[in-house]
Amino acid sequence: MSIRIGIMGYGNLGRGIEAAIKQNNDLELAAVFTRREPSLVEIRTPGVVVEDAANVSEYKDKIDVLIICGGSATDLPNQTPQYAREFNVIDSFDTHANIPSHFANVDREAKENGHVALISCGWDPGLFSLARVYADSVLPDGKAYTFWGRGVSQGHSDAIRRIPGVRDARQYTVPVEEALEAARSGENPDLTTRQMHTRECYVVLEEGADPGVVEEAIKTMPNYFADYDTTVHFVSQEELSRDHAGLPHGGFVLRSGRTGVKRDHNELIEFSLTLDSNPEFTASVLAAYARAVYRLAGKGESGCLTVLDIAPSLLSPRTPEDLRAHML
Amino acid sequence: MSIRIGIMGYGNLGRGIEAAIKQNNDLELAAVFTRREPSLVEIRTPGVVVEDAANVSEYKDKIDVLIICGGSATDLPNQTPQYAREFNVIDSFDTHANIPSHFANVDREAKENGHVALISCGWDPGLFSLARVYADSVLPDGKAYTFWGRGVSQGHSDAIRRIPGVRDARQYTVPVEEALEAARSGENPDLTTRQMHTRECYVVLEEGADPGVVEEAIKTMPNYFADYDTTVHFVSQEELSRDHAGLPHGGFVLRSGRTGVKRDHNELIEFSLTLDSNPEFTASVLAAYARAVYRLAGKGESGCLTVLDIAPSLLSPRTPEDLRAHML
Repeated sequence: MSIRIGIMGYGNLGRGIEAAIKQNNDLELAAVFTRREPSLVEIRTPGVVVEDAANVSEYKDKIDVLIICGGSATDLPNQTPQYAREFNVIDSFDTHANIPSHFANVDREAKENGHVALISCGWDPGLFSLARVYADSVLPDGKAYTFWGRGVSQGHSDAIRRIPGVRDARQYTVPVEEALEAARSGENPDLTTRQMHTRECYVVLEEGADPGVVEEAIKTMPNYFADYDTTVHFVSQEELSRDHAGLPHGGFVLRSGRTGVKRDHNELIEFSLTLDSNPEFTASVLAAYARAVYRLAGKGESGCLTVLDIAPSLLSPRTPEDLRAHML
Repeated sequence: MSIRIGIMGYGNLGRGIEAAIKQNNDLELAAVFTRREPSLVEIRTPGVVVEDAANVSEYKDKIDVLIICGGSATDLPNQTPQYAREFNVIDSFDTHANIPSHFANVDREAKENGHVALISCGWDPGLFSLARVYADSVLPDGKAYTFWGRGVSQGHSDAIRRIPGVRDARQYTVPVEEALEAARSGENPDLTTRQMHTRECYVVLEEGADPGVVEEAIKTMPNYFADYDTTVHFVSQEELSRDHAGLPHGGFVLRSGRTGVKRDHNELIEFSLTLDSNPEFTASVLAAYARAVYRLAGKGESGCLTVLDIAPSLLSPRTPEDLRAHML
């Protein structure tokens, strides 16, 4: 019997999950839920219903795991606790500072109603968190670094688009090669925000807008750009649409540490991702963890979990015997 | 209260564990066991007893986790099942083909006697296994590669030393840069043994030995060298001792896979290690997993496990709240 997955929200992430389900024989798409008019949402899996999000409760017995594809700012803080009352759920909540309160809210609802909820799943938080915790545990006498990119930051692209005179924009976060090499060197340098990443902006102006004013507005924007070396390229809408339509991303988690009684040996652990599609890869991680959530719910577990609480074997469709014989 | 660790066998790995314990405040060295004459074994932790391995049973109530530092060929197949009767145990059994039978033997003894046993812990098998399973689960439509090196292979060095006319030798396994790039390319090429690694040998001859005969014997040795491009350098004992005394190692686990309904996006997951000291790093992994074994035994679990069965958070000295707030 397949694991029946519901997708709440059919944007880039929801579509990625639909595609990931097709790659996993033991997963099956049960329904897609949307806040739009369902008849206007065309999905790629024949025979599967698109349903108004308001009717999700009717699918209580038809879905094993509901994957919630909302945004971290306003959707997930409400949706994940709410849906954890009726479903086993997964989200990709990525506002790091608010994870403890989100965890508490989801944990309460999931426990009270006997469901398993997994929050903050994806690659960061997600696979990068795993890399940080494994490396921190193995090399306590060391220092860790996380670099992001080269990749498109949706938040930074949106911030540029809100500047008067900007018609469209795409922002790339770029790790600085010299900083990466310094992190790998074993010297464990202290690296500032400015030293680790640069920001590259591709901007389409409204007619008549002053490029100098826009460039200054970008480069001095607090939190988003002021602490970084930022370059701004003005391009045509055609060029932006042609060369910058994708959503690539990735990054590096490194930890180097000392071992031995004399601390004279250096050990470097490095985990990296190079992604053509940030949302499709995130969706692929969520799909694998849906299998784990289903298995844990089947064992009678309940409450909120993160990727740190889940044994790797639970993600795999292979049997424990197969894993030991061929993957260990 | 600290977790009391016993070390069975005081070679490179045992010494590495002693050093790793000093880096972890919640771990404490309880005793070192040796098959040598205990009075001749000098350890680096003042006040800790060195005991004859034959008397280990007397420490049944003084040790929480016994880390067994024997060899995979003849020691561990006997030692790990035997000691699992009286202790929670960890080993680094690395003969991949025999893992299923070793697991069965250890599982039986551990279950019958209510202990937790963790086998095949380290970096390969170990952290590399984790990387393979996470990546395989997340990118099912893909292909994985494991590269080893640049590093010293003890088994291959020993094999050279058994050739008549060889006084000493050190063998490095070296990943081929072009093969690494091919694996990263997203083309998912089939790579042969010869394409992925080369072997570099540093050899000291006995007086009067014929270098041509020795070189031929190395390069044609089945299993060890015949399938590889092998280079042989003849050096003096002084040069070998001076330049090749370390035990560096490392390697790469890569998996690239396709995502999206049109399979038009490529995603690359890469995990790598660059180690100055293979045994000290292996020991650091074992020490972190000793914490997990202790915690699982405390929850009443029993039987044989591998790293694939253990949630990442169990390795960390940090609380779950701390991990969620700062590492996720």
